[in-house]
Amino acid sequence: MDNRLNLKHLLGIRELSPDQIVHLLDTAETFRDVSKREIKKVPALRGRTVINLFFEASTRTRTSFEIAAKRLSADAVNISVSTSSVSKGETLLDTARNLEAMSPDCIVIRHSSAGAPYHLAKACNAAIVNAGDGAHEHPTQALLDAVTIREHKGRIAGLKVAIIGDILHSRVARSNIYLLSKLGASVSVAGPGTLVPAEFAGLVEQGVRLERRIEDAIIGADVVMILRIQRERQTDAFFPSMREYAVHYGLHVSHLSLAAPDAIVMHPGPMNRGIEVSSEVADGGRSLILDQVTNGVAVRMAVLYLLAGVGAEVNESDKDSVSHTESRAGGGVRGRTRNPKRGTRN
Amino acid sequence: MDNRLNLKHLLGIRELSPDQIVHLLDTAETFRDVSKREIKKVPALRGRTVINLFFEASTRTRTSFEIAAKRLSADAVNISVSTSSVSKGETLLDTARNLEAMSPDCIVIRHSSAGAPYHLAKACNAAIVNAGDGAHEHPTQALLDAVTIREHKGRIAGLKVAIIGDILHSRVARSNIYLLSKLGASVSVAGPGTLVPAEFAGLVEQGVRLERRIEDAIIGADVVMILRIQRERQTDAFFPSMREYAVHYGLHVSHLSLAAPDAIVMHPGPMNRGIEVSSEVADGGRSLILDQVTNGVAVRMAVLYLLAGVGAEVNESDKDSVSHTESRAGGGVRGRTRNPKRGTRN
Amino acid sequence: MDNRLNLKHLLGIRELSPDQIVHLLDTAETFRDVSKREIKKVPALRGRTVINLFFEASTRTRTSFEIAAKRLSADAVNISVSTSSVSKGETLLDTARNLEAMSPDCIVIRHSSAGAPYHLAKACNAAIVNAGDGAHEHPTQALLDAVTIREHKGRIAGLKVAIIGDILHSRVARSNIYLLSKLGASVSVAGPGTLVPAEFAGLVEQGVRLERRIEDAIIGADVVMILRIQRERQTDAFFPSMREYAVHYGLHVSHLSLAAPDAIVMHPGPMNRGIEVSSEVADGGRSLILDQVTNGVAVRMAVLYLLAGVGAEVNESDKDSVSHTESRAGGGVRGRTRNPKRGTRN
Repeated sequence: MDNRLNLKHLLGIRELSPDQIVHLLDTAETFRDVSKREIKKVPALRGRTVINLFFEASTRTRTSFEIAAKRLSADAVNISVSTSSVSKGETLLDTARNLEAMSPDCIVIRHSSAGAPYHLAKACNAAIVNAGDGAHEHPTQALLDAVTIREHKGRIAGLKVAIIGDILHSRVARSNIYLLSKLGASVSVAGPGTLVPAEFAGLVEQGVRLERRIEDAIIGADVVMILRIQRERQTDAFFPSMREYAVHYGLHVSHLSLAAPDAIVMHPGPMNRGIEVSSEVADGGRSLILDQVTNGVAVRMAVLYLLAGVGAEVNESDKDSVSHTESRAGGGVRGRTRNPKRGTRN
Repeated sequence: MDNRLNLKHLLGIRELSPDQIVHLLDTAETFRDVSKREIKKVPALRGRTVINLFFEASTRTRTSFEIAAKRLSADAVNISVSTSSVSKGETLLDTARNLEAMSPDCIVIRHSSAGAPYHLAKACNAAIVNAGDGAHEHPTQALLDAVTIREHKGRIAGLKVAIIGDILHSRVARSNIYLLSKLGASVSVAGPGTLVPAEFAGLVEQGVRLERRIEDAIIGADVVMILRIQRERQTDAFFPSMREYAVHYGLHVSHLSLAAPDAIVMHPGPMNRGIEVSSEVADGGRSLILDQVTNGVAVRMAVLYLLAGVGAEVNESDKDSVSHTESRAGGGVRGRTRNPKRGTRN
Repeated sequence: MDNRLNLKHLLGIRELSPDQIVHLLDTAETFRDVSKREIKKVPALRGRTVINLFFEASTRTRTSFEIAAKRLSADAVNISVSTSSVSKGETLLDTARNLEAMSPDCIVIRHSSAGAPYHLAKACNAAIVNAGDGAHEHPTQALLDAVTIREHKGRIAGLKVAIIGDILHSRVARSNIYLLSKLGASVSVAGPGTLVPAEFAGLVEQGVRLERRIEDAIIGADVVMILRIQRERQTDAFFPSMREYAVHYGLHVSHLSLAAPDAIVMHPGPMNRGIEVSSEVADGGRSLILDQVTNGVAVRMAVLYLLAGVGAEVNESDKDSVSHTESRAGGGVRGRTRNPKRGTRN
């Protein structure tokens, strides 16, 4: 396996090159098999420490990272906001520096403030992984979505992807738009006008189409990504009621007739059934919602492996010599090659 | 060791045959020794993932399952209600399906709603273990109680068992009544009339005796099981006050003179000292309350091993060839024999 | 390595002999290297169970103990107050006895009541480690402070140490005063009169100097220990305002000119920047605040190893024969030598 990601932290998709994204997707695919085995464990990160630092509640993302770490044989330590020092008045940076002083190899952080992981990355030697920062980015979600699309469509370049819903509050939308555009997909987004942020207009030149009606976004789409209404984030009233949202922006089976005949449907979860997505769609034959979750573990294994494992430490001369089922006692320096020329597959 | 439990999930005692119960008890006894060793660990579930999904707070049950999983070398992942997606509006079934998509081998669930584990079992491939569902069942508690009785009495059949207290709210009472009746014990129950559910009258034909006065239930009993007052569950006033309950239904040393000379006393914990049980009884020589806790770890090891380990996967032709200290790389199919004829010991 | 600590529990520094303290510090130093390796793990406590029982929220202390346990290959189980049985009315002692019945090798306890760990130690066979009890003691904090001082000063005896701040509420101050006095340092303390407890006057005879002005305490100090304002503990108003505290008792760079030229600055964290310590001091070249955190993991590894590992079980005849990177299958008896004569280094 080629381990040259040339990346110290995973903060967002925006900073990644297409090569880096493809390398992450390729690596995730090699890990997907591990979770299908009877013995779902490889020794890749034995003796490494992964801290999950969650300032927002999350079942699936924290669990996915924890399972990924454990299947790599890492020691996983969970810290959730309710038991943290934040209530004692410590700054985020002090919390991070203190954790760093305990020599973790990786700190996975979820935070309600956009930019929090960048803040940490400047202060820490440990690899920082953004598990969602405010309405900014959620890079592992975009990666797992891309793995799921590749699994079912064989490619990303040239596909038409529609993203429907609460764009304004969605770090998922943002990371996916960056990733899909970089890998050559054509993206259209649709949602209530108040929920499509003005700054996204700048993406128009990059080929992202903004639509008001979801029907216009879905026409001919190969992939329909539904976002969830972030009810817990909406302090203002962006639309009159949930019922009204469901009527105008909820995805129903009838919408799918507008998409390509073999279109697939995705949702990052957790779902508000009957609001942004009907149960008929969610549980239908086109839905890949649970495949996304399965690929999430594989993507997080790849990210942790490449940033915190042997994979993070090889250099040019070592290429193709390191297996992810063997950890090397000797280790290596943290030098990385600058231009890991590789063919892309997308 | 014989691994043919012929069971995919452990949802309740009611569905189990006497043979299955005895097989669980026998297996638990073989695991009891592991926790007495210096190295309290066997590799039986290495590379397996056990999720503890607790929608109700619990120190002892969650800890007992977690320790059991770890002593079997499984990866244990805890999810408690306060950090779950429930607050984000996801259904229980979606939460379970999402966890399932991360390929756990077993999901241990505690939930305030009766039937929640059955709901999950219909949707999941992972083995579901009921760690207490509302006022319905708590099968591992009944199993650990039975292991404790066998340990001290050598048998269950023919014993007289008195169950005292808040029968109405007690999943412990329900599971124990099923188990003890199936294995041939004679059960009598006593508690305030308002706390003995009407449906239990149906058990009279099966040999369960209903008494109003605890003295009448205890006369000649070999085992006295005290239930705890579920103060946190009582939204209505079932009895005037805790003090009044303590006077009429609290177990005191004087009551024990009515029981058999070598009667043993049990309580599932946590105890409300001075309410349903006096400290003199709880800390007395007949009390097996801490033995119950010790046996709880052994019972949960047995359950996890039989449902999620190699034990879950052997078939007739493999019998007697699988040791619980060795996990097989080759695995096996999930086929089970339908009629594992075995002698019972109870 | 010499394993004869001759100690069953670590409850406080007050009960320790200078020899025992030095043995703990020496052992911690041997573990410091483990966290610097690529594979940060030794098998010393494989198959041992360590329970972290925290009745008060804590990021750093709980995480430090958990990481220490995992780097020793122990199974670490966390129990925090929010998920415990305390809300169900169980006594602390019953909670502890129940955990004990699950055969842990060590219970690490943090509790808001002074003396809680002593209470547990009387009832439990497992090694009890005090991770902070009310305003009483926090022995591992004092040990990690001492390791940090030795690392930078080469000794403790003969040093002048100033402790500044909220002495009244500080278990850190109390444990440090005991440790530093026992190892021959000269200690002066300063803080608002209302925050220096009367009982500490008894320490004057042991050589502890009480000062009102922090300048008087700092003059010539080799080590300046700042305590944190325990805002969450102050139910009464001990001083007019935080601002006023910052003005009179906050440590600024100007204060350091009074100390020895090579004085070091310490703080147990979490810091209230701008209150008890200025950022210029906290982030300055003399600050060892993050070294303290790093040494915290090493100290906790030493404590767990000596109390719960093979180290807890060797006797005189085995001395110098046990390596902490190998666990012995054979084990040994829990007999300890009474007078492990050893040279001290402090």
